[in-house]
Amino acid sequence: MTTLLTTRDIARLVAARGLTQILSQFVERLEADFRRWPEFDKTPRVASHSRDGVIELMPIADATHYSFKYVNGHPKNTRAGLPTVMAFGVLADVATGRPELLSELTLTTAMRTAATSVMAARALARPGSRTMALIGNGAQSEFQALAFHHLLGITEIRLFDIDPEATAKLLRNLAGVPGLKLVACRSTAEAVNGADIVTTVTADKANATIITPEMIEPGMHVNGVGGDCPGKTELHPGVLEAARVFVEYEPQSRIEGDVQQMPADFQVTELWRVLRGQAAGRQADTDVTVFDSVGFAIEDFSALSVLRDAARELGLGQPVALIPGLADPKDLFSALQPAGAVLEQMLSAMPLAATAAAPRTEVNAALA
Amino acid sequence: MTTLLTTRDIARLVAARGLTQILSQFVERLEADFRRWPEFDKTPRVASHSRDGVIELMPIADATHYSFKYVNGHPKNTRAGLPTVMAFGVLADVATGRPELLSELTLTTAMRTAATSVMAARALARPGSRTMALIGNGAQSEFQALAFHHLLGITEIRLFDIDPEATAKLLRNLAGVPGLKLVACRSTAEAVNGADIVTTVTADKANATIITPEMIEPGMHVNGVGGDCPGKTELHPGVLEAARVFVEYEPQSRIEGDVQQMPADFQVTELWRVLRGQAAGRQADTDVTVFDSVGFAIEDFSALSVLRDAARELGLGQPVALIPGLADPKDLFSALQPAGAVLEQMLSAMPLAATAAAPRTEVNAALA
Repeated sequence: MTTLLTTRDIARLVAARGLTQILSQFVERLEADFRRWPEFDKTPRVASHSRDGVIELMPIADATHYSFKYVNGHPKNTRAGLPTVMAFGVLADVATGRPELLSELTLTTAMRTAATSVMAARALARPGSRTMALIGNGAQSEFQALAFHHLLGITEIRLFDIDPEATAKLLRNLAGVPGLKLVACRSTAEAVNGADIVTTVTADKANATIITPEMIEPGMHVNGVGGDCPGKTELHPGVLEAARVFVEYEPQSRIEGDVQQMPADFQVTELWRVLRGQAAGRQADTDVTVFDSVGFAIEDFSALSVLRDAARELGLGQPVALIPGLADPKDLFSALQPAGAVLEQMLSAMPLAATAAAPRTEVNAALA
Repeated sequence: MTTLLTTRDIARLVAARGLTQILSQFVERLEADFRRWPEFDKTPRVASHSRDGVIELMPIADATHYSFKYVNGHPKNTRAGLPTVMAFGVLADVATGRPELLSELTLTTAMRTAATSVMAARALARPGSRTMALIGNGAQSEFQALAFHHLLGITEIRLFDIDPEATAKLLRNLAGVPGLKLVACRSTAEAVNGADIVTTVTADKANATIITPEMIEPGMHVNGVGGDCPGKTELHPGVLEAARVFVEYEPQSRIEGDVQQMPADFQVTELWRVLRGQAAGRQADTDVTVFDSVGFAIEDFSALSVLRDAARELGLGQPVALIPGLADPKDLFSALQPAGAVLEQMLSAMPLAATAAAPRTEVNAALA
């Protein structure tokens, strides 16, 4: 049986543990997994592009576990009442191929992305950073805000979105958080002015220039989250030219990140090297650093591992028969035969919506 | 909500409709989809190899739907009581990225593979073929046997497997099928001798030579199913040299099929061209034809489409909250807040195994 975690299970998990605690566990697991980067079998994600969006598969494996995430990106979805980004994923056993956990990853992606941003900022932002600009106040913005507040000590967040209702929603959602000052701004430039950290998390599938060189001040750290697809960028090339740029997995970032705008020999540093002490992160208070984040499969691997452990501890999730349980594994055909099927007994305790609709004819008749 | 079809649902579907009818619907949909081959956005599957097996993702899309399959291949699994091949997959809406159907695909893969074999044999085998050798009597063998019996008119099947218990299991499972003569043989050569069609569906991850040139007789059609992975072949190169070879998707078959043994300029014909009348299939009764099948994503796309339609008609499957239902799609954060959450109401009618284990603390406390 595979354990299924729905969005409701994840909401319960967060309610039980607290969002800060989950984010903190994500950061911890992410750091541990990034530090053992060479142990992973990595590949750029596989994208299927269509007119209005993209659907991607993100596989990765270490010696014992395999994971993949299904994720879409459809900026126009919100007009139809659907989230821009929807995701789910699986954690499987490398030795047998058995899927152990199937989980929603929409909420989880928002959390693991914020956790990854914090992990990068710990290595790259100026120590003592207190003010953050948050450009793009959509689905992921509250998660970024809370992660930076609780785990990095950000106390003031300056907000801007081209949609004022998105900013109003963020202000409502985070109104009660003690010690966090939220300031709605009238432009990106106003929000960025004086910020220690600039987080961009916009959704438009376009070569946008949300952040331009004249907005950048010495010592800033840019956490670029929304430029994550061919033809979807947020930073003016001049911002990248004047900065030290860090990425997750270079082969994927060259295709999807803001660095897609730069020549192939433009220098980037993979973040795991900094975390392992093999490459320098920030070297001076005046350095401008950019984390050109696109989201890499290892982050979902880390998140799924945390979810699996937490779900076990809290007894969350339901078993689903995604794979047949067979008395003789070479006898797959027996799974079609109700009489004496072990499968049938195993599953008889399970909830099934449509029991009444399925006639129970004999398979011998069905085979004729 | 995404509709979940478990192995039990698929067994019920087969019991309700009859296996022959499902196989027939699969062949019909496969032919329709193969005939519109150029409409699909195709890519070779993405494989993650480990010591004992492989885990693969198989994505494909047309203008309206996207599908992918997760499938493993672990020949040693049967020793641990698990199937060699386990699979599940998703059908999603290209316009929004929403996953509509999540289904088991272990049983389904066995059915769609047999249906694909029949589709190819209709175009490639000698008309009037009556005798088939079936080498490899494991999990997929009954499906191949029944598909060729019911849909192609095969009346005698000559069986061989290095594991006599596998053959005994097949004989037991198909003992009651009227009009089908099953003959257990002592070797591959004995089984192949005089057969019109030779189906190989072995599991060993090795460069095996199950079928050698001296076994081949003029007019034979070889349905090679088990050579489907780098380093996993069934046919001696001499068999391919002396035959006209047909494949599903050439870029993938060159890597995974029995033709992986042949030089890059060895001529193969993609099957869809034959089905569209753009290339010749069998041209003479003495031709030796080989369908070097590896399994391509379009076959799962076709199968998932049939399952979606049949599940709707029969009321099978259960809705699962794989994706959050949000009143405001930009307000993902609200999915974490039980108070007033639309999500919570939508899901409250759903079965959940671990309700009692999840404490319902307030999110405001959790956020602190």
